[in-house]
Amino acid sequence: MKNYIKANEWNIIEEGFDPHLNKISESIFSIGNGRMGQRANFEETFSGETLQGNYIAGVYYPDKTRVGWWKNGYPEYFAKVLNAANWIGLEIKIDHEILDLNTCTVTNFKRVLNMQEGYLERSFIAELTSGKQLQVHAKRFYSIVDDEAGALQYSIKALNFAGTIQITSFTDGDIQNQDANYDEKFWNEVSRAVSGNIALLTLETKKTFFEVCTATQVFIQKNNKPVAIKPASTHREKFVSHLAVTDVVAGDSIVLHKYAVQLSSENHPKDKLQHISEQLLHKIVAKGFNNMLEEQAAAWAAKWETSDIVIKGDVKAQQAIRFNIFQLNQTYTGKDARLNIGPKGFTGEKYGGSTYWDTEAYCVPFYLSTSAQEVTRNLLIYRYKQLDKAIENAQKLGFTDGAALFPMVTMNGEECHNEWEITFEEIHRNGAIAYAIYNYIRYTGDADYLADYGLEVLIGIARFWKQRVNWSAAKNAYVMLGVTGPNEYENNINNNWYTNTIATWCLKYAIEAATYVKDNQPHVYQKLVQKLQLDEFAEFSSWNAIVKGMYYPASTELGVFLQQDGYLDKEQTLVSELASEHLPLNQKWSWDRILRSCFIKQADVLQGLYFFEDDYDKDTLRRNFDFYEPRTVHESSLSPCIHSILAARLGDQERAYQFYLRTARLDLDDYNNDTEDGLHITSMAGTWMSVVEGFAGMRVRDNQLKFSPFLPDSWESFSFTINFRVYVLNIKIGHEQIIISNKSAEAITIKVFDKDYTIAAETVIYIVHKEKIVNIVA
Amino acid sequence: MKNYIKANEWNIIEEGFDPHLNKISESIFSIGNGRMGQRANFEETFSGETLQGNYIAGVYYPDKTRVGWWKNGYPEYFAKVLNAANWIGLEIKIDHEILDLNTCTVTNFKRVLNMQEGYLERSFIAELTSGKQLQVHAKRFYSIVDDEAGALQYSIKALNFAGTIQITSFTDGDIQNQDANYDEKFWNEVSRAVSGNIALLTLETKKTFFEVCTATQVFIQKNNKPVAIKPASTHREKFVSHLAVTDVVAGDSIVLHKYAVQLSSENHPKDKLQHISEQLLHKIVAKGFNNMLEEQAAAWAAKWETSDIVIKGDVKAQQAIRFNIFQLNQTYTGKDARLNIGPKGFTGEKYGGSTYWDTEAYCVPFYLSTSAQEVTRNLLIYRYKQLDKAIENAQKLGFTDGAALFPMVTMNGEECHNEWEITFEEIHRNGAIAYAIYNYIRYTGDADYLADYGLEVLIGIARFWKQRVNWSAAKNAYVMLGVTGPNEYENNINNNWYTNTIATWCLKYAIEAATYVKDNQPHVYQKLVQKLQLDEFAEFSSWNAIVKGMYYPASTELGVFLQQDGYLDKEQTLVSELASEHLPLNQKWSWDRILRSCFIKQADVLQGLYFFEDDYDKDTLRRNFDFYEPRTVHESSLSPCIHSILAARLGDQERAYQFYLRTARLDLDDYNNDTEDGLHITSMAGTWMSVVEGFAGMRVRDNQLKFSPFLPDSWESFSFTINFRVYVLNIKIGHEQIIISNKSAEAITIKVFDKDYTIAAETVIYIVHKEKIVNIVA
Repeated sequence: MKNYIKANEWNIIEEGFDPHLNKISESIFSIGNGRMGQRANFEETFSGETLQGNYIAGVYYPDKTRVGWWKNGYPEYFAKVLNAANWIGLEIKIDHEILDLNTCTVTNFKRVLNMQEGYLERSFIAELTSGKQLQVHAKRFYSIVDDEAGALQYSIKALNFAGTIQITSFTDGDIQNQDANYDEKFWNEVSRAVSGNIALLTLETKKTFFEVCTATQVFIQKNNKPVAIKPASTHREKFVSHLAVTDVVAGDSIVLHKYAVQLSSENHPKDKLQHISEQLLHKIVAKGFNNMLEEQAAAWAAKWETSDIVIKGDVKAQQAIRFNIFQLNQTYTGKDARLNIGPKGFTGEKYGGSTYWDTEAYCVPFYLSTSAQEVTRNLLIYRYKQLDKAIENAQKLGFTDGAALFPMVTMNGEECHNEWEITFEEIHRNGAIAYAIYNYIRYTGDADYLADYGLEVLIGIARFWKQRVNWSAAKNAYVMLGVTGPNEYENNINNNWYTNTIATWCLKYAIEAATYVKDNQPHVYQKLVQKLQLDEFAEFSSWNAIVKGMYYPASTELGVFLQQDGYLDKEQTLVSELASEHLPLNQKWSWDRILRSCFIKQADVLQGLYFFEDDYDKDTLRRNFDFYEPRTVHESSLSPCIHSILAARLGDQERAYQFYLRTARLDLDDYNNDTEDGLHITSMAGTWMSVVEGFAGMRVRDNQLKFSPFLPDSWESFSFTINFRVYVLNIKIGHEQIIISNKSAEAITIKVFDKDYTIAAETVIYIVHKEKIVNIVA
Repeated sequence: MKNYIKANEWNIIEEGFDPHLNKISESIFSIGNGRMGQRANFEETFSGETLQGNYIAGVYYPDKTRVGWWKNGYPEYFAKVLNAANWIGLEIKIDHEILDLNTCTVTNFKRVLNMQEGYLERSFIAELTSGKQLQVHAKRFYSIVDDEAGALQYSIKALNFAGTIQITSFTDGDIQNQDANYDEKFWNEVSRAVSGNIALLTLETKKTFFEVCTATQVFIQKNNKPVAIKPASTHREKFVSHLAVTDVVAGDSIVLHKYAVQLSSENHPKDKLQHISEQLLHKIVAKGFNNMLEEQAAAWAAKWETSDIVIKGDVKAQQAIRFNIFQLNQTYTGKDARLNIGPKGFTGEKYGGSTYWDTEAYCVPFYLSTSAQEVTRNLLIYRYKQLDKAIENAQKLGFTDGAALFPMVTMNGEECHNEWEITFEEIHRNGAIAYAIYNYIRYTGDADYLADYGLEVLIGIARFWKQRVNWSAAKNAYVMLGVTGPNEYENNINNNWYTNTIATWCLKYAIEAATYVKDNQPHVYQKLVQKLQLDEFAEFSSWNAIVKGMYYPASTELGVFLQQDGYLDKEQTLVSELASEHLPLNQKWSWDRILRSCFIKQADVLQGLYFFEDDYDKDTLRRNFDFYEPRTVHESSLSPCIHSILAARLGDQERAYQFYLRTARLDLDDYNNDTEDGLHITSMAGTWMSVVEGFAGMRVRDNQLKFSPFLPDSWESFSFTINFRVYVLNIKIGHEQIIISNKSAEAITIKVFDKDYTIAAETVIYIVHKEKIVNIVA
């Protein structure tokens, strides 16, 4: 755990330069706009530890997998979002010395991520070995207005010397993914061209043949007067550069502006890629750096308008929640249904930038409440578009007749993970994908989605579960063998309660959804029946038989559901009984010891009780919570949020707050010593859930918003804004009153602590609450 | 399945050249002497498909593992026996054409492995593109007399032309393992020297720093007169060569002899390696090729004297069993307790040439009966020497206090496999290692082995089991969770009956062994108690508690033991119900489908009933056999032999014979289409077991040999020779009589069909048997 980020409500601030923290800061201060993203690398030369990273959504490489022993059905490759050309590069040479923070003396270093306006800023004074001092100020951003563009401003002031400054501005495409399995490079050059102050570098990925054109234009002024820039040598492959040389005396200021666009053949025809790049470059240069930045600030203000959470009385908590919201919005904007949310977004290479069930299980609630409906809808359509691949994937494993198994990890719909216990067995992801459809419709009311897209996916998933269970004569019930649940600290288990539960839920929901479409859009339904060769009677009957006959492991003695068959055969110890040197288990224990222990990585039975809370009474929840939580090590960053929400539901506000704290500042404080690999983007959505579903107790039931809020003792208040259908509401929870503003043009009736309140359009209500006894005061 | 090997009692014969079969033949015709081995590659250039392979026992490389996702406790490397310098190389150039069977027309091709005398022979007529015809005859062997030496003879006759023949004889050390994980080369050159007709190439392995010196001396004669040989260029790294050029006319014969020694720093000091190589080379050259070959034939005759199985009435069966015995004897000679038996011996690279539990479970019975006692004893001492590493290995997984887990795959005692489900969980290997000690003592009577070596190993193993089980309050018994049994078609299962059974057997046997040593060698015992810090009372009590309280899954309804917890939850189908396109499962089914099916890869419960047959009555065996065999796909070559022996025990002679057939010609007929990767050396021991323990029903009980033989209908008779303590016996089973020759100087009393027969020294008895009613006739 680190503690070097300065507390601030709207900014992430690092003061003073510590090279050992640099890779962590590179992750934390990352910038992105949903279309591309970049680690907070230095523009100028840096010979210290760094992970240079610039990533473009959807541009991936099928890296050859690395497995010990091939198993039949394994995917051929592990997809990776590619580290792309680095366009921010500047080499600053003062006489014969190169500016490099690793070799000079650095003072007044400050790095700021301005979350309100969406840019990264850095300033410092560097003293070179020669004693020459420079003051540098750098600012850059990826535009969310022009989402294929970025820009940077880099100012150098000569503090105490006269001499010659030589600036080489370059784009380097000779880039390697740090996580390449066989140290291969994934890019080939298509073309490079430098002329005037413009440089174009077009690269193509091997195997997948994506082309990306990176075009830059650079301007340099000295004391507000232009400095001549000339193209530099183009002999180096995958590398283009410009050169400017100028003499300075103490007090002179040089200001460089570099504009960049990165266009991918995913979005433009290959033969026009360079031409369109030049056009777009022209457009943003015409706007100019300051105008672009103003537009950026305005666009971010609009995003904050609908997604901010304001916490009063705790600056660190305020900073943390905004950081999480900011990074989520930097990662996914919902404009493009071909894109999704990698667990590390654009901030690192781990997990390959691919799509996991994190999206459906953790991110969907955040985007539902804070963005336009289309944003989440696009996340669902992403899976719909990959349904054919999911059916193929299931076929590879031996399933037939349209059964669909969505991949555990994917870039284009094909499975690309390579551990059998995950790829083949962690099939509960299929359930989360179905649940997201349900959750989307519950929240938005957009039941037409079923006819348009959802039902097809639900039927593919239902057919999978149908074939995946088998009848056990021994148990006189349907069983599901050989699975891995959300708790990845057990593999190849039988009758994982969560998986069995979500499987039968899927079967029920698929029938419900089919019935809804049949009743409401009979023509569409008939087309689907034909397209899917759906044998309604036979298939639904068999699904219903499984719903009725499924086996759910449970202990009547303990009154709890069992994680899996045989769970109680394990030695039953509690995390609290483990000496601290055993934790985290995944670093201290061998894998087999973890597997046979009773310790749980993340919410599993409890994940099910979270999804299906209306199906279980509070006593059941409490018994299971009290049994499992003490056995859970929360070694997935996705675990505490679910526990926080359930603790809140059980009225255990203190624990709800403690669980929230475990992830709120996970990356800002580098809790797990792994932030340097990239940020935990998808867990950030869990933090948001802890506040909104946990502390505020927000639910949507029967087309109505419900709240049963509490305020952590140490806070003065918290408030958040949500989109709900045609409404925008701001909910503020204070110690004594709840203030709800209806910012929309229609009245809305909501429930607070199970009591209805109607709030007129553009109106605010105040509810006094003490021990859940509430009254409207105004 | 192929069928191109000609039937012959003593020889393996290939006639006619089919390049597509070449890699298979390279495996089948492999030669070796326990110290080194070689695939039957061609001496001359061959541009067709080939796996050039020459391997030296004990010289390995720790290749960087290839895993998808690192798990805590994984071994750092996967050890590989290294493909070493190829010394047989000859380039034959006739004028400007190179002799290459892939580019010329080949007739009269014949390849013979002479098993009686231990050499490989090949002859053919080649017509070059120019129309020139050559007749070639090649012979080579690895000496089992001088076990660091090999020699080859290569004759060329010009059939129809006059021209110039240029022969380059070389040793090529620029060799790569085909199975290298990252395409790395593992050898560095230490030195190379060529002078006169001698070439020395010394190479060193990277990381492990083994040095191997390959020294060759070459002689060429034309029409019985020497041809001048001169050293060739030494500019090429890791490559040494000689050159001879001579003119020929039709009818001329050229005969080349090449002698080679390969010395490893495992056996000689590095600084003397070249000197000793030259000395040994000198010695074998002095013997000459023909003398060496005579010695070889004599040495092999002696081996056959004690290990042959003679089958009358079935030439293919005769050829097959001899082939298996021959290859086993080429692989392991028992001279060096640092060596062991790789699953593919020296015939390929798969499985890394490392040691598996195959040795203890399948090979020990063969070597016990066919070799001197020391041979098996050295196999046991191999593990004893690695006990410290086994304790370290267990410590890495979290075990303490001297618990030992022997590795699943090893070269030097360190675990070097890299799949958690195998490495961490297939722990039953520990049991097989203990069982081999028991089996050795039962067979040889050498109970002193316990005090000398055995007890220490048994205590380490017992301590492991003690810590590996846990008390299940739910089952009110000890359980063993998270294991993989011999049936690798299930992973991470609970209460594998076989593993639980062998674990408690180990605990009992360790206590018995300790008691024996305490009673018979109290001083040794006291030293061991101190060395091992053995707390007799507490430890033995805890072991006994587990013996008494262990849980064994069983179905009382079916009267069978259960493979594992929950086995009956699986859909119960039989292999016979599977359409043939589903088989073999490991090629046709995805891994998850295999795992959740009821199908069993190899004997598992039945392996236990084989090991501990005296503990179970025949009805129990029959019920389990009848239940499990129909669910077993025998996709391990180690499976049929156990089934053959058990079927024989159950009196099901037809099935016993059918199971025998499934492995007897596994490699000769390339049953599984994988012989090109190398031979199934360890399974070959299983074939021997099928005949001796199965058909002949041989057992050792209470220090006495027992037989209950039968003869497969299609055979006229079979006979085999065994060493048993001070005795050498030959047992011949005919349709009507059993002939037992006691070739030793002492009388022996044996049991046949449970009746005692005493056979005087140097005497033969004849027993008439019909329906097991037997009488001595002479």
